Amino acid sequence: MLKEFQIIEKNFKKIPSSIFLGIGDDAALFEKNKKEFWVISQDTLNINTHFLSDTDSENLGWKSLAVNVSDILAMGGNPKYALLSISIPSANQSWIKKFSKGFFKCAKNYGVELIGGDTSKGSLSISICIIGEVLKKNVLLRSNAKPNDDIWVTGKLGLPALGLKFKKNNFNAPKTLIRNAIKALEKPQPIKVDMNKLATLCNSAIDLSDGLVPDLNHILNKSALGANIYLESLPMPLWIRENKSYPLVLSGGDDYQLLLTAPKSSYKKIIEFSVVNKIKISHIGSMTKRKNIDIIKSDGELLNYKEKGYNHFAE
Amino acid sequence: MLKEFQIIEKNFKKIPSSIFLGIGDDAALFEKNKKEFWVISQDTLNINTHFLSDTDSENLGWKSLAVNVSDILAMGGNPKYALLSISIPSANQSWIKKFSKGFFKCAKNYGVELIGGDTSKGSLSISICIIGEVLKKNVLLRSNAKPNDDIWVTGKLGLPALGLKFKKNNFNAPKTLIRNAIKALEKPQPIKVDMNKLATLCNSAIDLSDGLVPDLNHILNKSALGANIYLESLPMPLWIRENKSYPLVLSGGDDYQLLLTAPKSSYKKIIEFSVVNKIKISHIGSMTKRKNIDIIKSDGELLNYKEKGYNHFAE
Repeated sequence: MLKEFQIIEKNFKKIPSSIFLGIGDDAALFEKNKKEFWVISQDTLNINTHFLSDTDSENLGWKSLAVNVSDILAMGGNPKYALLSISIPSANQSWIKKFSKGFFKCAKNYGVELIGGDTSKGSLSISICIIGEVLKKNVLLRSNAKPNDDIWVTGKLGLPALGLKFKKNNFNAPKTLIRNAIKALEKPQPIKVDMNKLATLCNSAIDLSDGLVPDLNHILNKSALGANIYLESLPMPLWIRENKSYPLVLSGGDDYQLLLTAPKSSYKKIIEFSVVNKIKISHIGSMTKRKNIDIIKSDGELLNYKEKGYNHFAE
Repeated sequence: MLKEFQIIEKNFKKIPSSIFLGIGDDAALFEKNKKEFWVISQDTLNINTHFLSDTDSENLGWKSLAVNVSDILAMGGNPKYALLSISIPSANQSWIKKFSKGFFKCAKNYGVELIGGDTSKGSLSISICIIGEVLKKNVLLRSNAKPNDDIWVTGKLGLPALGLKFKKNNFNAPKTLIRNAIKALEKPQPIKVDMNKLATLCNSAIDLSDGLVPDLNHILNKSALGANIYLESLPMPLWIRENKSYPLVLSGGDDYQLLLTAPKSSYKKIIEFSVVNKIKISHIGSMTKRKNIDIIKSDGELLNYKEKGYNHFAE
């Protein structure tokens, strides 16, 4: 079976003539005015594929929108409008009420207005189209990383994957950690920020939905570069580090944090931005001309790590 | 259980501040420039709700986009971009190939460019977000029908509902008719036209997805008016008329033709438009101040017809 990405690219990659960017990045761009593009993306969450059937519906309402917000941020844009299409097996009023509560909390948090959509009968599935604005000079394309760019990530990685692992297969771990992990899985928190300020410091970005390594690989492929990643620098919960559960961080996915690449000249400004805006941003490595990912341990040795992207169809 | 419309309105009807029109019409509008709006809509088709499991995947590719094109036309706009989100149980290459063939045929036919979307694992479901352009002076709102407006419909009605009825429950009817009916069901043909020319002649419009009566009722509710419909004037296949299978026409749904209301002063121009553009447009009645729908038979008597909207959740 083909991977999701290949399915899309093989059958639906047409090169449209009148838009700046079509399929192949976190979102598409089309002309807004001389200085700005509209940035638009659509993501679907399906039961048992993207979320488990016991997921709290208020959290699901939040997450459905949050994962779309994340795509807009990853283009250097700010989200603005959303359309929401819900498929649901029956018109369960309390479910819908809780779902909409979570959805609108997220919408308010990120300044998004719901402008359309539909509700229909079907297997539980949430499809959202999100529209944002981005200054043309700020667009963060996957293809625009440069050699020697610093690599940054926002927030912490690995918690959502830990939560999913626990929900699928109970194991022994501190209760508070598991509670936080499930919360991180069910209610992801993309950074809340005016992207105009951050994007101007960066060259490229992607949102971490499939996992650090597979998502970084998209930037590598599009930019024809490689990367050195410093294991010690990766922001992760202490428990994951102590248990060396690195795959949760490297390919766990569902983080909905940003991976950014930026010129060395932006280093201090990004630290400053991080402090002023109280957003955790960690320097985790740098781009290389050599076209692979080396994950370097504190002793200088390479981590023996086989990249495993998340593939819905390979489960 | 609540009807689909009520579910949407009850939980998701917020009044956004920065857009011209939100939920409650065929599509939402937001500012493009001084003269135009962007018009945007999202519709989802689910297996066993919107299409049967034996539907030809090429036709499904066509239909998924066509029903969205129909929403843009119903706002007086022309479609431009689409985002396509496919959920599918397994990465069936030949299915996807055929689906994409139908999708792109439809896209070419109506001048739509695919600019984004995703593919994921799940119960078969197609969600499309479509974006079009509409001149501000041409916007056809459901709320803008006027008393004494003529009511027009494009194309013929009832065939898709006949096709669905046959597929669900074989019955005796001419083979050619059934073949055409199934084709009408699986490959709907919204009118192919520059809506700038037609919209300028009209006051309001809606696309016929739920059925003539329930869809006309949306216009009636929003415009606080009623309507006289002349049964003899309704464009329908002879077989339906001879068998008096009027519910197929009145509430069958899935027609994806336009219902338009227009001032009497547009009468001749609409006929002219119909001839020049080779598009069947039938005059079927007129708007009244009395707030109900009377369906008038050729003998002047009223058809005893209880309105039945299509309701996914009431099946």
